[in-house]
Amino acid sequence: MKLSGQEELEASHACDDVPVGQPDGDPGSDPSPSDPLNTGSRDLGVPKDLPLFIQLNELLGWPQTLEWRETGRWVLFEEKLEGGASRWSAPHVPTLALPSLWKLRSLLAEGLVLLDCPAQNLLELVEQVTRVESLSPELRGQLQALLLQKPQHHVQTPGSGPCWGSSRPSKAPPDKEAPLKEQRQNPLRRKLPPGTEAAAVLAGELGSLAQPLGAFVRLRDPVLLGSLMEVPLPSRFFCLLLGPPTLGKVYGEMGRAAAVLLSNQQFQWSVRRASNLHDLLAALDAFLEEVTVLPPGRWDPTARILPPKCLPPQHKRPSSHLRKVKGCSVLRGTGTKDRHQHGPLAPSPELQRTGRLFGGLVQDVRRKASWYPSDFSDALNPQCISAVLYIYLATLTNAITFGGLLGDATEGAQGVLESFLGTAVAGAAFCLLAGQPLTILSSTGPVLVFERLLFSFSRDYGLDYLPFRLWVGIWVATFCLVLVATEASVLVRYFTRFTEEGFCALISLIFIYDAVGKMLNLAQTYPIQRPGSAAYGCLCQYPGPGPGGNESQWTKSRPEDRDDILSLDLGMVNVSLLPPHKCVQQGGHPRGPGCHTVPDITFFSLLLFLTSFLCATALKHVKNSRFFPSVVRKVLSDFSSILAILLGCGLDAFLGLATPKLTVPEEFKPTLPGRDWLVSPFGANPWWLSVAAALPALLLSILIFMDQQITAVILNRGEYRLQKGAGFHLDLFCVAVLVLLTSVLGLPWYVSATVISLAHMDSLRRESRACAPGEPPSFLGIREQRLTGLVVFILTGVSVFLAPVLKFIPMPVLYGIFLYMGVAALSSIQFVKRVQLMLMPPKHQPDLLLLRHVPLSRVHLFTAIQLSCLGLLWIIKSTPAAIIFPLMLLGLVGVRKALEWIFSPQELLWLDELMPDGEGNKLEKGLEPGPSFSGSDSEDSELMYQPKVPEINISVN
Amino acid sequence: MKLSGQEELEASHACDDVPVGQPDGDPGSDPSPSDPLNTGSRDLGVPKDLPLFIQLNELLGWPQTLEWRETGRWVLFEEKLEGGASRWSAPHVPTLALPSLWKLRSLLAEGLVLLDCPAQNLLELVEQVTRVESLSPELRGQLQALLLQKPQHHVQTPGSGPCWGSSRPSKAPPDKEAPLKEQRQNPLRRKLPPGTEAAAVLAGELGSLAQPLGAFVRLRDPVLLGSLMEVPLPSRFFCLLLGPPTLGKVYGEMGRAAAVLLSNQQFQWSVRRASNLHDLLAALDAFLEEVTVLPPGRWDPTARILPPKCLPPQHKRPSSHLRKVKGCSVLRGTGTKDRHQHGPLAPSPELQRTGRLFGGLVQDVRRKASWYPSDFSDALNPQCISAVLYIYLATLTNAITFGGLLGDATEGAQGVLESFLGTAVAGAAFCLLAGQPLTILSSTGPVLVFERLLFSFSRDYGLDYLPFRLWVGIWVATFCLVLVATEASVLVRYFTRFTEEGFCALISLIFIYDAVGKMLNLAQTYPIQRPGSAAYGCLCQYPGPGPGGNESQWTKSRPEDRDDILSLDLGMVNVSLLPPHKCVQQGGHPRGPGCHTVPDITFFSLLLFLTSFLCATALKHVKNSRFFPSVVRKVLSDFSSILAILLGCGLDAFLGLATPKLTVPEEFKPTLPGRDWLVSPFGANPWWLSVAAALPALLLSILIFMDQQITAVILNRGEYRLQKGAGFHLDLFCVAVLVLLTSVLGLPWYVSATVISLAHMDSLRRESRACAPGEPPSFLGIREQRLTGLVVFILTGVSVFLAPVLKFIPMPVLYGIFLYMGVAALSSIQFVKRVQLMLMPPKHQPDLLLLRHVPLSRVHLFTAIQLSCLGLLWIIKSTPAAIIFPLMLLGLVGVRKALEWIFSPQELLWLDELMPDGEGNKLEKGLEPGPSFSGSDSEDSELMYQPKVPEINISVN
Repeated sequence: MKLSGQEELEASHACDDVPVGQPDGDPGSDPSPSDPLNTGSRDLGVPKDLPLFIQLNELLGWPQTLEWRETGRWVLFEEKLEGGASRWSAPHVPTLALPSLWKLRSLLAEGLVLLDCPAQNLLELVEQVTRVESLSPELRGQLQALLLQKPQHHVQTPGSGPCWGSSRPSKAPPDKEAPLKEQRQNPLRRKLPPGTEAAAVLAGELGSLAQPLGAFVRLRDPVLLGSLMEVPLPSRFFCLLLGPPTLGKVYGEMGRAAAVLLSNQQFQWSVRRASNLHDLLAALDAFLEEVTVLPPGRWDPTARILPPKCLPPQHKRPSSHLRKVKGCSVLRGTGTKDRHQHGPLAPSPELQRTGRLFGGLVQDVRRKASWYPSDFSDALNPQCISAVLYIYLATLTNAITFGGLLGDATEGAQGVLESFLGTAVAGAAFCLLAGQPLTILSSTGPVLVFERLLFSFSRDYGLDYLPFRLWVGIWVATFCLVLVATEASVLVRYFTRFTEEGFCALISLIFIYDAVGKMLNLAQTYPIQRPGSAAYGCLCQYPGPGPGGNESQWTKSRPEDRDDILSLDLGMVNVSLLPPHKCVQQGGHPRGPGCHTVPDITFFSLLLFLTSFLCATALKHVKNSRFFPSVVRKVLSDFSSILAILLGCGLDAFLGLATPKLTVPEEFKPTLPGRDWLVSPFGANPWWLSVAAALPALLLSILIFMDQQITAVILNRGEYRLQKGAGFHLDLFCVAVLVLLTSVLGLPWYVSATVISLAHMDSLRRESRACAPGEPPSFLGIREQRLTGLVVFILTGVSVFLAPVLKFIPMPVLYGIFLYMGVAALSSIQFVKRVQLMLMPPKHQPDLLLLRHVPLSRVHLFTAIQLSCLGLLWIIKSTPAAIIFPLMLLGLVGVRKALEWIFSPQELLWLDELMPDGEGNKLEKGLEPGPSFSGSDSEDSELMYQPKVPEINISVN
Repeated sequence: MKLSGQEELEASHACDDVPVGQPDGDPGSDPSPSDPLNTGSRDLGVPKDLPLFIQLNELLGWPQTLEWRETGRWVLFEEKLEGGASRWSAPHVPTLALPSLWKLRSLLAEGLVLLDCPAQNLLELVEQVTRVESLSPELRGQLQALLLQKPQHHVQTPGSGPCWGSSRPSKAPPDKEAPLKEQRQNPLRRKLPPGTEAAAVLAGELGSLAQPLGAFVRLRDPVLLGSLMEVPLPSRFFCLLLGPPTLGKVYGEMGRAAAVLLSNQQFQWSVRRASNLHDLLAALDAFLEEVTVLPPGRWDPTARILPPKCLPPQHKRPSSHLRKVKGCSVLRGTGTKDRHQHGPLAPSPELQRTGRLFGGLVQDVRRKASWYPSDFSDALNPQCISAVLYIYLATLTNAITFGGLLGDATEGAQGVLESFLGTAVAGAAFCLLAGQPLTILSSTGPVLVFERLLFSFSRDYGLDYLPFRLWVGIWVATFCLVLVATEASVLVRYFTRFTEEGFCALISLIFIYDAVGKMLNLAQTYPIQRPGSAAYGCLCQYPGPGPGGNESQWTKSRPEDRDDILSLDLGMVNVSLLPPHKCVQQGGHPRGPGCHTVPDITFFSLLLFLTSFLCATALKHVKNSRFFPSVVRKVLSDFSSILAILLGCGLDAFLGLATPKLTVPEEFKPTLPGRDWLVSPFGANPWWLSVAAALPALLLSILIFMDQQITAVILNRGEYRLQKGAGFHLDLFCVAVLVLLTSVLGLPWYVSATVISLAHMDSLRRESRACAPGEPPSFLGIREQRLTGLVVFILTGVSVFLAPVLKFIPMPVLYGIFLYMGVAALSSIQFVKRVQLMLMPPKHQPDLLLLRHVPLSRVHLFTAIQLSCLGLLWIIKSTPAAIIFPLMLLGLVGVRKALEWIFSPQELLWLDELMPDGEGNKLEKGLEPGPSFSGSDSEDSELMYQPKVPEINISVN
């Protein structure tokens, strides 16, 4: 809390920074506006480039009741007063008519221009401005009175909810000096960064004027102009544009033009430094040079252009805006994971090979050790509490879902309890010791799939699973240590998007296939009762010739059951219609084909499955809806999975059907009955299996290496502006140790999980608070610390005691979440978007940058190759050799290399990314435009403004 | 088929017409461009304003391999060649940099301007253009050779499917004179209206030039320029912009500027008439006056602005563009029904009171009689066949759904067979005789709801339903005749949107409530079997002491049932486990609590219900998706209901469960057993009931009048450009007669159905075929005839014999469609959008014009009043007095009148529409801006470009 002051300071910097879109020159090298970040250079002579709030007051009501009214305001974008609706429009890109700029120019050229005017208050300013020769004394007096008149401001009611009361402007008595209450309470004020100056533009038509009156004033010291402005900010600029009545709102439009000019960073820079009229007009001409023109009649002028998500810089210098674009679309939402690929993955310093054994690991430890104390002190911020809550619930959901599915897949060799315990132990250890403590360790899709295959393998060959698995774990740890020792992590650069997409698509498809398959299997477990089937045939038969005493016994003890049982009506003593489980309780035998069927379960399970899938999907999309305040939307979207699970449980509990439920042991002991927490090293297996386990371990090591390292690269991207650096080798080392530990304890295996780690980072992002209307808050960095993760996993550990509650969760609900995960992961990759392109007629295809640069047939060819690779992987996955699929995934790297024979580097750059060529120094070669005309210069530099098609989702979790 | 020539002629007119966005002046009154529709004025002196196709060829490859390449083309919008992708971009609004316009201006001012150049071919033209003093002879020769070089065109492969082959430009040998094959086959050619002229802009950088070379040529006669253009059109303009190499593509951008200029209608008009350089530059300056300017740094210049749905006119004249806007968004899709309310409903001439008894009816008959022969001859077009197919299937779906629901609601007093028969008879009669034969008569929601209430009423009081209903029908016919006689249809102007929305919302809510309610009732009919419930208790007991022979009989006859029956295993001869229906067949008695439960039905029905609802909703939205060619999307969307029904039936048939099905009589006879086709006038009812029936008949008359007339007003709106006029009185007369007829036969009652009639009109709309890229096809009118409707209803009549197939349709599927109809109708009204506004924070609200003009609190107040009215209606509907709800609907008119005390006319104009004030002459009064500043002039004129929030849906059908 006590850091809030510092926060605000950062905020002000941030808002000045990237998104304001000021021209960025090399400071000092040319006389262009310097970076306002260095506000430290407070020389008296050099004007400070503070943000500017511009307000347009229009003179309305001529000839009856002259009145000033604020009709527009600008910081970055325009907000217009909706006259009839008394409300501010949404911020939008201003549009002007060209003649109004010309007229403004000529009026300024002829009018009064006062630079560094020494006026100290509005009165003095008004006197200065009206000291024009052409005005008669009485007109001057009238004008002065008019200018001192309090304008009508529309101050929006604070609070984000829809306001019910009338919010028409109130007419407070004018008080010249102190800021009015409504000015101080104006919510706009909080949005403007500290130090913001104001500019007032007054424009309108006045019948008593014979000729136009234009004045532009730059005040030497910014002055509070009383009630003139809607916010009590000191004004630096004052612009007056009055004239005789005209057809149309000529002066109002000129006022808008002046305001838009002043809101332009480049013009501001120039006009703050202008020393005479000539400089002012030159700045205006420079502005005109840069404008974009829309021809008449081809565009609806009442349409408002929404602020772009990413502001383009004003000068097109490819070298500089690369950085900016990267900074712009980072971490927007947890669901989308952007990956900008302006050229190949630039190897970060952490991924440079040292050439020494364990050299990378040593470097990592050395680097991270210096940050270790701050990894705890940096967590002292209230934001961390909400981050802990969010990530805890997400981890819990993950532990339940994956634990349930693992129990399902391994037939109870592991289960939810192991999942909770393992998550807690592995996660906490990783947060304490790893190179990138923001990473959340979790069960991930690929490892789950592998574990399922390993289990079927060991079941098919009659092996004792957990001991076998222990040896696999020991070997995996060994192989990973070798990988750490040889600094193999630097090879991660060969995993291009092609590999990652194949990886992700395969796992997602397995998820979807499994979820649907498990639901269809339910129809066999609980057969549907067709009209012809003998669903009714079940009765309870008692052994022995005459159980009369027995019969009378339960008839007496349960009189309320009499109607149900009907045994007396049947006139038989050794047969009753008791339901099977009660029959067994009574010592009878259920007889008949209908005894083993449970009606309604299949369809109800299907309903639960669909409900949880659709609910999770819908809630995830609430984030982008227009309804509800953004806090509510964020909560609904962030907790979509757990809310869907809760809804499914509620529905199930409400109807009380015997749907299949999650298996949870009654007390704190392993799910597999009879086993100790420590796995015995051999069990029933022959000794040589400990050696043979090296083979599957090799496959798993490949998988873990790919899963872990690709995630690590994504998390440590430059655009997240991490200050404390990454630790690829240290991370892998930790994972190896934890694989060993969890194998010994018979717990699931864990690696870094992309989605949840990104969510963790997102919940810890620092953003500027004060931002101009229409400007997205700018990204300042991430609170890099170890505490939130640690607390999350301690809480997860404590939640082991929640286990008894978990047995109320129906499995179909978990399958629904499983399906949702698969579909969400699948739809996030570019590959799927390209498959969709195949189904779209060219004219309906979205305007992807990719399609602007690569012929459609080549795009389709690339997609078709990916599809065939995926088909091949799927076939392998369906054969008994399924377990070797990690090797095949690695084979994708080779396929990708072979693609260089088919596609040009330019095409691969757009469709994928470039692979390192030799030692990575000649990487840029492929980027040069070839002798063909593909991509002319201007087009290529244009492209830099837009982030390339983003989205990568490496693993399902 | 033989009319196709005429079609093309119309098409060319149409494309010239409204959407081209040419300035429309009053012809002759000022020298502005005249309406190109009057191409008949072929004076030699006056240039024809033909459409212009503009192509930009850029000179690329300096200094290595000079080559011309077509990089852009324009008709209305810009299409840009995506260099790398070798494809044309989607049409978009062109954007220019202002300096390129300035540079173009100065180059033209200094360059060569040839107006009415007599060149006859490219060679002559090139010679003319290069006859510049500054060029040395060898440079001239070089230049001429360069200009004669064949440029690279990118011709898009014909066919709308994605092309798989490489479509790189082919290098055909240049053939100077005849159009090349690829030119003739260019699909673009078919899109351009006949008579289109071409303009060639050649621009680029040439190292051998020392100074810029600019030339602008207007050819006296348009000339085919050989392979210069991608389409073999005669060229009227030729513009050459060459210069020494510069930084950036300066000349290319100037070329774009020249092309955009030429694509401007106003500039075209001027330059066709320009007699010297001064005129040319003046036209350019006039263009500059009209452009819209976007300030730098606030907008992403690589973003492409999509063509607006409705082109704004170039000159802002409120009187003229009202018509244009109306013409623009008419009949776009059957789902949305636009209703533009620029001022109150202008009473059409058919709605003027004559003051004579039956005066309106006589006028209607007289007017329509003259069109009667053409009502059949106008149907001779292949388009009518597809219209018949579409509307037939829609009518069939309606007949099935409403028939099924009516059977459900009246407990079999009517049913599907009556629905088919009634639809056929009433529909065909209406199409033959009514005033507006495009109207499709159908069961509509309000009448269905009333019939349900009438049935419950008569059941509650023990009345004989059909005879009672006959008297209601007789009275309704009488009241409607009185309404026709008194020309009451003119009162329809008092039904404003407020009334219509109340009407529609109530009916939609009843639909939704009923559909969900019926599904929940299923859970009582087919109880869910919880674990504790005695679902298993059912066995088959045979009467008599020892039915051994009986038992052995069926054991022998059905050996395959043995395992199921298990009677031998039970060791009993008088009891078996046969399912209930087989037990009864065998002469036994099913005994036990489980005999009457049918498992799985409830949940499966719920699944069917959700499936059909979601499927219908999803298919409806396919229309707006990007996938599949538009024909496929249209089919899927148009037939969404029937496809959803088919899917539901298929699912049901696949699983073969005993879900409740549609009741259909086995043979052609009324659904109610034992009744004749003619309803007896009294039945078991007392005689005085025939008089008392007048009371419900009054209510039904109100309902029918409102339903019929509001639909009629919507269908006869001016924007549909109907030529043959409406017949409000005649329509009502026909409806009255048909109510009588259907009551006598015991068939459902019918009135005009909005949605399906609009779909009918939409399927008959005539559109221009040839349209520029990016331009929506323009609307020419509707094939007004009686034949399509007649054929549709004859087919419906024939479909009575389909009835036996219908018994496979499960009721839950129909309930799903019912729910879909309710939800679709509800979501189409503005009222619901305003309710949604209440849940949105102001900053996320969409930029509705409504919200630009009415304060949010007033909008919410209006919505809240509507909500309370709806709540009141719902309460009445839930009481025993439900049957009076039509009176309450009429009461909405009074509430609306009272609202004039609370809201200002301006507010009501935006929220609703104005009611006629006295005799409708002072209507415009409320439109004038009041003394407050709500809506400044410029704002109000701006508004005219955008259609006001549309959407009205008066009845569910």
